[in-house]
Amino acid sequence: MKVAKFGGSSVASAEKFKQVAHIVTSDKERKLVVVSAPGKRYGEDTKMTDLLIALSAKIQLGEDYVDEFGQVIDRYREIVVDLSIPETIITDIITNLQSLIDLHKNDPFRLLDCLKASGEDNNAKVMAAYLNHLGFEAHYVNPKEAGIFVSDEPGRARVLPLSYEKLPKLRERSGILVIPGFFGYSEEGNMVTFSRGGSDITGSIVAAGVKADLYENFTDVDAIYSVDPRLVEKPHEMKEVTYREMRELSYAGFSVFHDEALEPVYKLGIPVCVKNTNNPEAKGTFIVAERPHGDTPVVGIAGDKGFCNIHVSKYLLNREIGFGRRLLEILEDEGISYEHTPSGIDNISVIMREHQLTPDVEKRVFARIEKELEVDEIFIERDLAMVMVVGEGMNSTVGIAAKATEAFARAEVNLEMINQGSSEVSMMFGVKADALDRAVQALYNTYFNSMYSISYSNIK
Amino acid sequence: MKVAKFGGSSVASAEKFKQVAHIVTSDKERKLVVVSAPGKRYGEDTKMTDLLIALSAKIQLGEDYVDEFGQVIDRYREIVVDLSIPETIITDIITNLQSLIDLHKNDPFRLLDCLKASGEDNNAKVMAAYLNHLGFEAHYVNPKEAGIFVSDEPGRARVLPLSYEKLPKLRERSGILVIPGFFGYSEEGNMVTFSRGGSDITGSIVAAGVKADLYENFTDVDAIYSVDPRLVEKPHEMKEVTYREMRELSYAGFSVFHDEALEPVYKLGIPVCVKNTNNPEAKGTFIVAERPHGDTPVVGIAGDKGFCNIHVSKYLLNREIGFGRRLLEILEDEGISYEHTPSGIDNISVIMREHQLTPDVEKRVFARIEKELEVDEIFIERDLAMVMVVGEGMNSTVGIAAKATEAFARAEVNLEMINQGSSEVSMMFGVKADALDRAVQALYNTYFNSMYSISYSNIK
Repeated sequence: MKVAKFGGSSVASAEKFKQVAHIVTSDKERKLVVVSAPGKRYGEDTKMTDLLIALSAKIQLGEDYVDEFGQVIDRYREIVVDLSIPETIITDIITNLQSLIDLHKNDPFRLLDCLKASGEDNNAKVMAAYLNHLGFEAHYVNPKEAGIFVSDEPGRARVLPLSYEKLPKLRERSGILVIPGFFGYSEEGNMVTFSRGGSDITGSIVAAGVKADLYENFTDVDAIYSVDPRLVEKPHEMKEVTYREMRELSYAGFSVFHDEALEPVYKLGIPVCVKNTNNPEAKGTFIVAERPHGDTPVVGIAGDKGFCNIHVSKYLLNREIGFGRRLLEILEDEGISYEHTPSGIDNISVIMREHQLTPDVEKRVFARIEKELEVDEIFIERDLAMVMVVGEGMNSTVGIAAKATEAFARAEVNLEMINQGSSEVSMMFGVKADALDRAVQALYNTYFNSMYSISYSNIK
Repeated sequence: MKVAKFGGSSVASAEKFKQVAHIVTSDKERKLVVVSAPGKRYGEDTKMTDLLIALSAKIQLGEDYVDEFGQVIDRYREIVVDLSIPETIITDIITNLQSLIDLHKNDPFRLLDCLKASGEDNNAKVMAAYLNHLGFEAHYVNPKEAGIFVSDEPGRARVLPLSYEKLPKLRERSGILVIPGFFGYSEEGNMVTFSRGGSDITGSIVAAGVKADLYENFTDVDAIYSVDPRLVEKPHEMKEVTYREMRELSYAGFSVFHDEALEPVYKLGIPVCVKNTNNPEAKGTFIVAERPHGDTPVVGIAGDKGFCNIHVSKYLLNREIGFGRRLLEILEDEGISYEHTPSGIDNISVIMREHQLTPDVEKRVFARIEKELEVDEIFIERDLAMVMVVGEGMNSTVGIAAKATEAFARAEVNLEMINQGSSEVSMMFGVKADALDRAVQALYNTYFNSMYSISYSNIK
């Protein structure tokens, strides 16, 4: 049994619905289908979710919202008409939207969350209707009915363990089950959305719940690339990547798969396959528990900006038991999460996401560090970027670090920081933000472009 | 005004005393002389300190100690006779030793500490007598008289701030002042020794106390080498090294200058010069606050064994505010000091000196980490060594890391760990202990042996 999730671009139009239906019905194992709301059909198009946000805003302002309401309905209507599905489903959607508005009009925050969720919810109804129209047994399954119970935190709901008691029952149902992504229900019965990329989370929860053999994640690329395709022409496609590798890549800027979305399947070791709706024959990228490393210890290069570094130094710091702990405690008191703490003998750097350090917080943190830790020096370094070379098995390969640092040297990128722990999935380099693209390109060329590779045995 | 400290090998025999006297009296600025106890004269010789330890052991056992007592006296007598100093000084030394024995015979720990300190103390008396004998005004100054007050922690005394109120008065005294190294006096009047290398500490305290222009540290090498001379033939001599660089090198295995010994002079910015008693014309190595980096960003390569790594991993660890702090707290509760904490997204390594992890401690630490932090995985990696490339200004030099990692690759040394913070004096690499020598040699050749250097502009 497979769970197939289709992202916004895969369900953006009637044409796409046809592709999806073909994909779903061409493999009997594809019993569970998770859909997003309709995405963009072309560059300047507006996503369904954004139409719904605009609708919510109008209602909140107490203004007339007929136009916005109409745009939402028209988007569904166009798909329904083009697919020749009975138009009664449009009436259902209108009724559904209006009832959400009536229910939550005095609670703008909840209204926004429910309207956003309705984008997926109603789209799932259309998908089920279309499959029926084609003559297949298919059922729309509301997340409450499916058993997706979540914490009541709109925009960042977390799945409750209870879900995994109910979800296995889906295995017993006949036909294709179409489940909307992006939200679940609180125990009080509210629709509550997950964070960004939430449909991926739904797919993963359902896959874990029914103990699927495979979780297929359909999007609009043939595979996950080894590097941001905006930076490199015709980048290498990853055939296999482990959960841990994928998580590191997501952390450092890969937006293709939300890292939180991997957790449910990771725990059960259910493989994920990222595939292209427009080219389902392409093998895609498999996200798995383990992969043979062979001669590809490195699977990807990622980079992300927006980091800063608080650097403290103190003579004989190294002798002070508790220094590091107390430093981290000060940051923790301010709710700051840190990324890495490279250190010398008498100094420690704390790397963190820069947005956390508002001027107020920075002032307080600096004052406390100076006073409580009696440091000799403290300063902040801004506009840093992190570049990561990711790959399991790197650690046991001689020369991986050499290739990376040499690539930086050739590209004249100065290394602000290197952080490689033992038994690592990744090597992390800190560079100035303005050197990020150059750094990523240089690393990519070194690991994936044989033209650039040098053999160490030849340098004597 | 200069403080000149002479190590054990520089005062091991009458011949050496003559060299020292020549050095001291050839420069009028050398007003303050700090001496160690007589060291080894040849490879199989026994140091005075070891003779005194043997004496103390005999007394403690309640056995006859005439032989051991005699060996100590004979060692001084030989020097005194060879220098033709009036032998009355030997009577003074015998009286001094016997009074220490009488005073502390029921407190073996204190007796040992005082007897050890007497090695330096009586040697200073001999040195002052010799200078007098040569016709120079010279005075033996007992540390109590000088004002070296310390905490009452035998074997690890720390200087008390009070000392710096009394020591400046030494400036007003006439003649050459000879002060024994290695110990001070507690406020209760006990002789108490510093830790290993304690004569260096005395010299540094005196230099800081009198605000000397220079602290000369005389030993038996022309300079501090850039690498352990047992590993490399004719190693490069360092002309200048900063306090911070010296501290990093000491930390990672350089035994030439005890790092604690630098603190007093570091705080006042007093330069230190490490010189050779046997070749005082050699310029030696200057330890200073700042040095021009120019084309020598790297000053030395050091390496040390005896480290281990506790590695923990947990999925989504990165999201848990407080994880790192709680991990360090568990170690702190057990009195474990750690060295570095390289980290990935979902894992942290804690590098520490291996001797701290007795089986009991390890068991408790592991149990607490597993229970309190609910980690997915925890393991220990033993027999690690740390290799450090040290040099201020490295951070602003493109290609330093590349050279290092390339050197490891060529030497087929696998890197377990890399830790380079920003604004760093050093880059640290973790390797298996059995690869340490190879790693140090490879790095030395890369940075100091032009035969091995490659230019990055030539690799395309």
